[in-house]
Amino acid sequence: MQLPWVPISLLAGGVSVAAAIRLFVWVERQDMGSARAQEVASWIREGAKSYLRRLYGTLTMVAVGLGIVIAIVFSFHIEQLETGMIAVDPARGIGMALAFVGGAVCSAVAGYMGMSVAVSANVRSATAAEKSLNQAFRVAFYAGAVMGLAMVGLAIIGMSTIYLITESPDIILGFSFGASALALLAKAGGGIYTKTADIAADLVGKVEIGIPEDDPRNPAVVADNVGDNVGDVAGMGADIFDSYVASTVAAMLLGTSLFVGDAQAKYVVLPLVLCTLGIVASLIGVQSVRVGKAGKPGRALNSGTIVTCAIFAALATLVVLLGDYNLGVLWATLAGLVTGVLIGFTSDYYTSSEFHPVIETARVSSSGAAINIITGYSYGLISIVPSVVGIVVATLLSYYLAERAGISGVYAVGISAVGMLSVSGMIVSSDAYGPIVDNARGIAEMAGMSQQVIETTDVLDAAGNTAKAITKGFAISAAALTVLALFAAYAEVVEGVMGGATLVINLREPVIVAGVLLGAVTPPLFSALIMLSVTRNAFDMIEEVRRQFRERPGILAGTEAPDYAACVGLAAQGALASLVMPAFLAVGLPILVGIILGPGALGGFLGGSIFTGVIFALLMSNAGGLWDNAKKYIESGEFGGPGSDAHKAGVVGDTVGDPFKDAAGPSLNTLITVMSLVSSLFAPVIAAFHLF
Amino acid sequence: MQLPWVPISLLAGGVSVAAAIRLFVWVERQDMGSARAQEVASWIREGAKSYLRRLYGTLTMVAVGLGIVIAIVFSFHIEQLETGMIAVDPARGIGMALAFVGGAVCSAVAGYMGMSVAVSANVRSATAAEKSLNQAFRVAFYAGAVMGLAMVGLAIIGMSTIYLITESPDIILGFSFGASALALLAKAGGGIYTKTADIAADLVGKVEIGIPEDDPRNPAVVADNVGDNVGDVAGMGADIFDSYVASTVAAMLLGTSLFVGDAQAKYVVLPLVLCTLGIVASLIGVQSVRVGKAGKPGRALNSGTIVTCAIFAALATLVVLLGDYNLGVLWATLAGLVTGVLIGFTSDYYTSSEFHPVIETARVSSSGAAINIITGYSYGLISIVPSVVGIVVATLLSYYLAERAGISGVYAVGISAVGMLSVSGMIVSSDAYGPIVDNARGIAEMAGMSQQVIETTDVLDAAGNTAKAITKGFAISAAALTVLALFAAYAEVVEGVMGGATLVINLREPVIVAGVLLGAVTPPLFSALIMLSVTRNAFDMIEEVRRQFRERPGILAGTEAPDYAACVGLAAQGALASLVMPAFLAVGLPILVGIILGPGALGGFLGGSIFTGVIFALLMSNAGGLWDNAKKYIESGEFGGPGSDAHKAGVVGDTVGDPFKDAAGPSLNTLITVMSLVSSLFAPVIAAFHLF
Repeated sequence: MQLPWVPISLLAGGVSVAAAIRLFVWVERQDMGSARAQEVASWIREGAKSYLRRLYGTLTMVAVGLGIVIAIVFSFHIEQLETGMIAVDPARGIGMALAFVGGAVCSAVAGYMGMSVAVSANVRSATAAEKSLNQAFRVAFYAGAVMGLAMVGLAIIGMSTIYLITESPDIILGFSFGASALALLAKAGGGIYTKTADIAADLVGKVEIGIPEDDPRNPAVVADNVGDNVGDVAGMGADIFDSYVASTVAAMLLGTSLFVGDAQAKYVVLPLVLCTLGIVASLIGVQSVRVGKAGKPGRALNSGTIVTCAIFAALATLVVLLGDYNLGVLWATLAGLVTGVLIGFTSDYYTSSEFHPVIETARVSSSGAAINIITGYSYGLISIVPSVVGIVVATLLSYYLAERAGISGVYAVGISAVGMLSVSGMIVSSDAYGPIVDNARGIAEMAGMSQQVIETTDVLDAAGNTAKAITKGFAISAAALTVLALFAAYAEVVEGVMGGATLVINLREPVIVAGVLLGAVTPPLFSALIMLSVTRNAFDMIEEVRRQFRERPGILAGTEAPDYAACVGLAAQGALASLVMPAFLAVGLPILVGIILGPGALGGFLGGSIFTGVIFALLMSNAGGLWDNAKKYIESGEFGGPGSDAHKAGVVGDTVGDPFKDAAGPSLNTLITVMSLVSSLFAPVIAAFHLF
Repeated sequence: MQLPWVPISLLAGGVSVAAAIRLFVWVERQDMGSARAQEVASWIREGAKSYLRRLYGTLTMVAVGLGIVIAIVFSFHIEQLETGMIAVDPARGIGMALAFVGGAVCSAVAGYMGMSVAVSANVRSATAAEKSLNQAFRVAFYAGAVMGLAMVGLAIIGMSTIYLITESPDIILGFSFGASALALLAKAGGGIYTKTADIAADLVGKVEIGIPEDDPRNPAVVADNVGDNVGDVAGMGADIFDSYVASTVAAMLLGTSLFVGDAQAKYVVLPLVLCTLGIVASLIGVQSVRVGKAGKPGRALNSGTIVTCAIFAALATLVVLLGDYNLGVLWATLAGLVTGVLIGFTSDYYTSSEFHPVIETARVSSSGAAINIITGYSYGLISIVPSVVGIVVATLLSYYLAERAGISGVYAVGISAVGMLSVSGMIVSSDAYGPIVDNARGIAEMAGMSQQVIETTDVLDAAGNTAKAITKGFAISAAALTVLALFAAYAEVVEGVMGGATLVINLREPVIVAGVLLGAVTPPLFSALIMLSVTRNAFDMIEEVRRQFRERPGILAGTEAPDYAACVGLAAQGALASLVMPAFLAVGLPILVGIILGPGALGGFLGGSIFTGVIFALLMSNAGGLWDNAKKYIESGEFGGPGSDAHKAGVVGDTVGDPFKDAAGPSLNTLITVMSLVSSLFAPVIAAFHLF
């Protein structure tokens, strides 16, 4: 059974986008609530849109600039290394540049849709909470699904279209790089933005002045709520979009290199087939999510994920059997899928207040902030182990089962990443739900809605935090498998250019070790730059908030509205300005290492960056989540409850964790993906020109 | 000029030990001061000795147990892999076991001498401070030199003796493993001990009760002062002893594999020659240290280091030229030497209160503990970069200059580690000075000596902190170069056993990547276990201190002496009990990985552990030092001075940094050395028996 898979993929993408639009319209038709609620929501909406305008403005410049570079570089095509023959082919250059811009635009459109619906769903969800938890949950989850379905739909439309036109995975690499470049800006910039606002709002509001969280008198409070959207909705969406496309293109590239003839045609397209099946499964999964009579939103989200995975697994089995694919790819797909979900749930163990690590960290907090930090950090370090072991097991299983089934093990590792990410539609839907209900809670507080609404939104919010923890674990391990596949693809590309020579990345050669060591220090350096940007920008915003309180005493008295826009503007401007060095590290450093130390050392560099990138991403995300929940656990009345010494220590831990878990940690996924893509893209150039 | 180098090395070792004993006697003859000072000092001395007795008790059991295992395993000698021929050779097994025990004993004796003189020099230095800074400095520095000179002397005596008897570097590997096993216990155990006591003393004393540091009413205060000795004197000494021996044996093994005939004899012995020259240079360097009229103890220590390096460089040049060695080894020696010193001084940049990172961290502390933590941690991450770049440059320089000069580049990397460590005698002397003057200050306070004595010891102490920061940077980078050499030696040993087959540790193979990932998570896991032990043990000690205060109110009133011994005992017992899991990770895990995944994956595992081991060691040591000095900077009156909000935040940072810099961070050196040695030692067994 060989169906015309690429047109079917295109169609599935179209259906997914159509479903997203239908849900968008449904959400827009819900009740917007009181005038006060609408006013509060409009501040957040305006703030979010003003940030996005700036972000997309910056992006346009970056896209145009990089697009021109790409068009020029790829107009020269090194045919073969030993002959030194260089062909001039402007059509290829322009095609690559267009694909690059297309990738950035698709990701941006998905992000824009997700943000737009999120900032109009927050107030509607809060309003619906006046009637029932069930209805409030529906509004928020369907709004989240807009992001999830639009994202996978646009990704597959872009990739299928390019493949239909060019039949070349190489050009899709350009598309993937475009998506990654956007993700780097959206994720790192969004992370800096949201944590700048969060820390500034907390330090001046809660600590200095002593007003509650989300108090409308705090000029930074709108920026804080905007931050939830730009960091967690647009940022996380762009991150998974990035991994989703990158894993698909990596597997397609491996298919091109490792197969010939009919098998090549079949296995190059398989990643798109799996994405298509994942979209079908996600569409059904999203429909299946219902909060029962018991009203457990967390359980509803999890069961949606499990339904999606089960349907996907069944469909994949069917297609592999009927389509006469080698069984090895099925094992790889399932290994990836199961590992992704398992790692998501284990990261829940380290960050949920139901288990030992969070409870222990909360317990020791009574001895002060330092012990809270040391304990949380230590559990964060330990939490790396199960996820990395999971990645190792998935890789080895995929590889060896495939080899035994008589198909390339390296290709199978690529497929296992695709298998893991194929259910992204559903995963992103649950994840985007989180910041929407978080915002709903904020609006309920700021608009002075009833205590019952606040309690309902609290329940919804708690489920959102769990979904967020699971998605983070999933996103990091998916990125890890993806970059391992990209790493293999990079090596294949280099070999292709070198005309038959084998690329060995042998750790016994000093230049390779040098590459690995330099790669290994890049993620720590990158995350340090992000965190220092957060504290620096937070200082600027604290000054602004203090200035407003000082110059306009009416604000604290409640008789005068604060200037929210000033804080929103500061956060946006600071975040984008802080991206220059990190962006250079991501794009410039691999090219520099390749040109100076050669393609082998660049392979080592990528390897090194993957190893420490995954470790620091897991450490920072999990430790941050753990501190957050340890604080919440104390606030729930344990170990002295709110106001106790333990609580004060918990707040310090939570604040340290903020930039860890929402800015520095998750940006590392994108960093390593961008570095791997840049290397694969520029591999032909680097193989031709290098010093060592 | 070929001299009988091995007997000369033995002689140099003897001279060094004799010089150490002479200085020991000199220190013992100094004035012990008032009866009160003697009483205080005796508490510390008794505590330190009781800890050492327990440590050596544990060590004896470990040494006997591991010694028997080694004797049995190495009595079976796999002659060649393909023939499967196994020779039974009990003499070899017993020789290896004896060498193992010898390594542990030599290191233990050096540590014991160092500790003994330290705990008798502290009170004498404090007493001498009543007369002059100059004399107090002399007592402390010469006491430190006892440790430095005894250590290098005993190391070279052990290695030369084994080589004279067996002419086999293999057996010296056993000696090195013995030294490493001791270092692991001494360093990790000492680190847990000292930080348990430090945190407990601070949290109950300073924070809960509000009595000053080093107040004799605090039952944990003696344990705290004992900790300085067991962690910083015995621990650091064992750490450098370990690297010193390991780098020498790695280079000797590489010499055996990579050379044949006359060249082999010459280059196998060269590492011992360099050690001999280093001892001569250190003996002169130690004599040259003088505090001038200006009274700058920091400058005196630094100039001693520079004199030692210059003399060593001159001697090495002379021997290479006259001995007709290939010039490549000279470049490697000098590259290692210069890099070691440069990395030491750059780590000073990140941890000294004269430069931007510490000042900036102190400045932001006024916004609370969280910002202090985030900022210090970020600078800690950045501080990794220059050191790693230094290691990369030293490796590449040694390798390529040697290859161009026509000698094995891999051997040259081994020699550069020896070059770096050859001046250890002087480095350890300056380092051991630190805890002695720290103790002197504590005794001055506890014994109620005059304000002028306290000020003098403060000046001496500040110089000690700088020396300590430099030594830590030096120790980590020396360990990094050493393990890179050991890594190369491991591969050579495996190849030797595999009879001509080449071992390629290719990052493109999934099983190698699996090994690297598993290796990469080991150092973070190890450091988490150490830190959790510290907080757990500190809790036990806090309970004990509270119990004493509660049950015997006379203690706080000053009418009753606290039970210091109870705290000392708790700290010692807790520290040793906490070592079980870390010790398993260090010794058992490499063997397990090798037997399951094979020698290639074990190579990857070692590589992975080196990459993250070096990164986390630098991060934790430097961030910890930075927080410590940021707090001291605020205490000196900046940004609000003592008692301000900034100061409270600084204290939190300092407490977080305590286990970072003195327990978890520096233990990682030893971890990666032990894992590399275990792998090399068991390489023949693993090459013969493995699953994958």
